[in-house]
Amino acid sequence: MHLSRTNATFVSPIVQSRRWLEDVTFSDDLPLLNLSQAAPADPPPEGLRQAMADALLSETSAHLYGPVLGNADLRTALAAQITRHYEADITPSEVAITSGCNQAFAATIQSLCAEGDEVILPTPWYFNHKMWLDMQGVTTLPLPVGDGMLPEVAKAEALITPRTRAIVLVTPNNPCGVEYPAALMDAFFELAQRHGLTLIVDETYRDFDSRDGAPHGLFSRKDWHETLIHLYSFSKAYRLTGHRVGAIVAAPERLLEMEKFLDTVTICPAQIGQIGAKWGIENLDDWLAGERGEILARRDAIAAGFAPLAAKGWQLLGLGAYFAYVAHPFEASSDEIAQRLLHSAGMLLLPGTMFTPAGAPEGHRQFRIAFANVDQTGIAEMLARLAQFDG
Amino acid sequence: MHLSRTNATFVSPIVQSRRWLEDVTFSDDLPLLNLSQAAPADPPPEGLRQAMADALLSETSAHLYGPVLGNADLRTALAAQITRHYEADITPSEVAITSGCNQAFAATIQSLCAEGDEVILPTPWYFNHKMWLDMQGVTTLPLPVGDGMLPEVAKAEALITPRTRAIVLVTPNNPCGVEYPAALMDAFFELAQRHGLTLIVDETYRDFDSRDGAPHGLFSRKDWHETLIHLYSFSKAYRLTGHRVGAIVAAPERLLEMEKFLDTVTICPAQIGQIGAKWGIENLDDWLAGERGEILARRDAIAAGFAPLAAKGWQLLGLGAYFAYVAHPFEASSDEIAQRLLHSAGMLLLPGTMFTPAGAPEGHRQFRIAFANVDQTGIAEMLARLAQFDG
Repeated sequence: MHLSRTNATFVSPIVQSRRWLEDVTFSDDLPLLNLSQAAPADPPPEGLRQAMADALLSETSAHLYGPVLGNADLRTALAAQITRHYEADITPSEVAITSGCNQAFAATIQSLCAEGDEVILPTPWYFNHKMWLDMQGVTTLPLPVGDGMLPEVAKAEALITPRTRAIVLVTPNNPCGVEYPAALMDAFFELAQRHGLTLIVDETYRDFDSRDGAPHGLFSRKDWHETLIHLYSFSKAYRLTGHRVGAIVAAPERLLEMEKFLDTVTICPAQIGQIGAKWGIENLDDWLAGERGEILARRDAIAAGFAPLAAKGWQLLGLGAYFAYVAHPFEASSDEIAQRLLHSAGMLLLPGTMFTPAGAPEGHRQFRIAFANVDQTGIAEMLARLAQFDG
Repeated sequence: MHLSRTNATFVSPIVQSRRWLEDVTFSDDLPLLNLSQAAPADPPPEGLRQAMADALLSETSAHLYGPVLGNADLRTALAAQITRHYEADITPSEVAITSGCNQAFAATIQSLCAEGDEVILPTPWYFNHKMWLDMQGVTTLPLPVGDGMLPEVAKAEALITPRTRAIVLVTPNNPCGVEYPAALMDAFFELAQRHGLTLIVDETYRDFDSRDGAPHGLFSRKDWHETLIHLYSFSKAYRLTGHRVGAIVAAPERLLEMEKFLDTVTICPAQIGQIGAKWGIENLDDWLAGERGEILARRDAIAAGFAPLAAKGWQLLGLGAYFAYVAHPFEASSDEIAQRLLHSAGMLLLPGTMFTPAGAPEGHRQFRIAFANVDQTGIAEMLARLAQFDG
C-alpha cells in the first residue's frame, strides 16, 4: 500500500484529546479540569488589543503581504529584546518571524535535513517535533532523559551517525517542565560543534523560567552562527496564540535558506500578530513580569501541595514552565488511566505515551499536567481530585 | 556535499524580484510600474476592517487557538458559498481553512505523496507549486501547455507512471490568465479517475473569472470525493493577503489526514483572517461583483490596447484573472530583458523562466504581467512603455 508523508505520523495528541472530550458530559459538581494544552485561555491585555484594532483601521500595510521573514520593525524589536535577555549582541538580520513556533521548527528542519537524515530528540519529546520529523522522512533518534529529566551528552554522542544533522533541546522543557542548566547547554553546544551538527534550542517558555538573567550563554559565543538555531514563540508571552507569531534566531544565510520554505508554506506571517508582538515587546515588560510571577506561584502551589499525592505513590518528575510531569502509581497504562481520569474524575491530562516512542515503557507510567490555564483554586482542586483517584 | 530539502529548490521569484528593486532608483518622470506580484495594494473595505477590529476588542476567542481545520462558522459559510457558486452540495465537513492557499497546496501534497512520487504540473507553472514539490522530494512531471495555453489530456496521460499521484490544474490560470473550459476540467477529472490519481484544482482566482455561473461541474459528480481536491484563497476576493486565509475542499477523511500537517506547521489559521473572511462571505457579494467588474475592465483595456505592441512583434498568449501572459519579440532571454525593462523602462515584470523548467526554451521568450495592482491609467502607461521599449 502506498503511504504518503502524513500517513507516516500519528494524529496530533491535542486533536485526539479534543475528540475524547466530544464523547463526555460533565456534571456541575465535577466540571472539566482541562490540563491538556499549554495555552493561555484569556485574551491579551487591553492595550495590546487596542493597538491591533487601531492598526486594522488605520494602516493599509496591516492587510497586505509583508516580507517573508517578517516585518523589519518586529525583527529589530526582537533582536534588541534578545540582546538584553541573553546579554548578547543579536542583529535584526539574525532574526526571522514565523507563523508560530511550530513553523519555526519546521523551517529549521527543512533547511538542515533531507530524506533519511537523522535528528536527536530527547524523550519525552514535544509531539509536534516528532510529527514533523516523521512527515519529512527524517529518522528520530530518541534520547531518553536521565537524572532530573535532563538529557545526557555522552548518551547523545553515542547516537550520532554520519546521517545525523541536529540535536533538539527544549528549555524550559515541554513536556517535562525542567529548566536546562547553562552548563548543560554549553556541553551540548560543544558536542554539536565537535560533530558538525546543528543545535536547535526551542525556548518557547523562556519567559516563565524561574531563573533570573540569561538562561544560557550560547549567544555570547563568537562562533554560534555555525552551530546554533534558537526558536521562540510570542504565543505564551503576550497571549497571542490565535494570531500565530513565532521567531527564529540563526545566521542570516541560514534564514535565507529557510525563506524558501516559509514563502512556499505561508508567504508571510499574519500582519496583526506581528503588530501585536511588536507592541508587546515595547510595552509589556512589567505585565509579563506579573504573568511570570503568577506562573511561578502556581508552580510553587503544585510543589507544596504534592505531599498527599506522593503518599499515594505519585512522583513529581519535573516542574516548570507550564508543566508538571508526573509518574502515576497504578498498574494500568497512562493511556487507560487518562480515560478513567476523564470519565470518573473530570480531568483531561495527556498520557506519557503521547511524548515517548511506541513501546517505551516509561510513557505508560507518566502524565503531563499543563497547569497554566488553571488558577490556584483549580490547582488545589486538581491535586485533591488526583489524591482521591484510585486508578 | 549534503543537500537539505530547501537546497533542492530555487529562491522564490517574488523574493528575487524584490531584491532587484533594492538596487534601482526611479526618477519622478519614470516611476516604478510594479507588475510582478498578484496582490491587491489596497486595504479591505471599511466594514470588513471594522468587523475585524471589533472582534479583537470584544471576542476572547479571536486571540486563542482555534480548531486545526478552521473555525466551524467559516467552514459553514464557505460550504454554503461554494454550494451556490458551483451549483453543488458541499457540507462544512468537506471544507478546511488554511493559512493561505500556498499552505492548502502544501497540505494536499503531504497527504498524497512521499519521497520519489510524481506530480504532473502544466507549464508555465505557479512557482510555489514547483518549489513545494522540490522541497518534498516529489518529482515534477512538466506538461507544456498546448493551443490557447491549455494543458492537453492525451499529453498528460502519456506522462503517467506507477509513481504518479496527482495532476495540478490552476484555473483561472496563474501565470497564463486562461480560464479552463468546463469540458477540459471534466476530461482531466476522468483521466485522473481512470488512473487512480488525484486532480488538484487551485481556484485562487475564481472570483475574477469572466464567465458567469459555475466554472465547472466537478463538484456535481457524485464520486468527486475519490478524485478531486479544490483549493481556494480569500486573499484576492476580500483583499486579505496580510491575514493569510485559504481553504481546501476535499473528502472529510482526506482533510483529517491533512490535519496532521496543518497542526504541525501552524496549529491553526490566524483567527482575525478567519473572522474577516466570514464577514466577507456574508456581506461583500456586491462589493466583490464590483471588484470583478474592475478587473475585467482592466483585462479588456489590455486586450484593446495591445495592437501597437502586436505591431512590434509582441504576442498576447493568455489574458484573464490578474494576468496577461505575453511573448516578447527580442533575441535576448526574458531574464536579461526583465533587467533592462526595470532599469531603462521602470517596469518590473517576471520573466517566463520563473514559470518554466530550467532549459525550456519558451520561458526565455515570455513574461507574466500581473495587472491587478495597476489602474486603467497605469495600464495605458504600461502599454506605452512596452511599445517604446526596444529590447
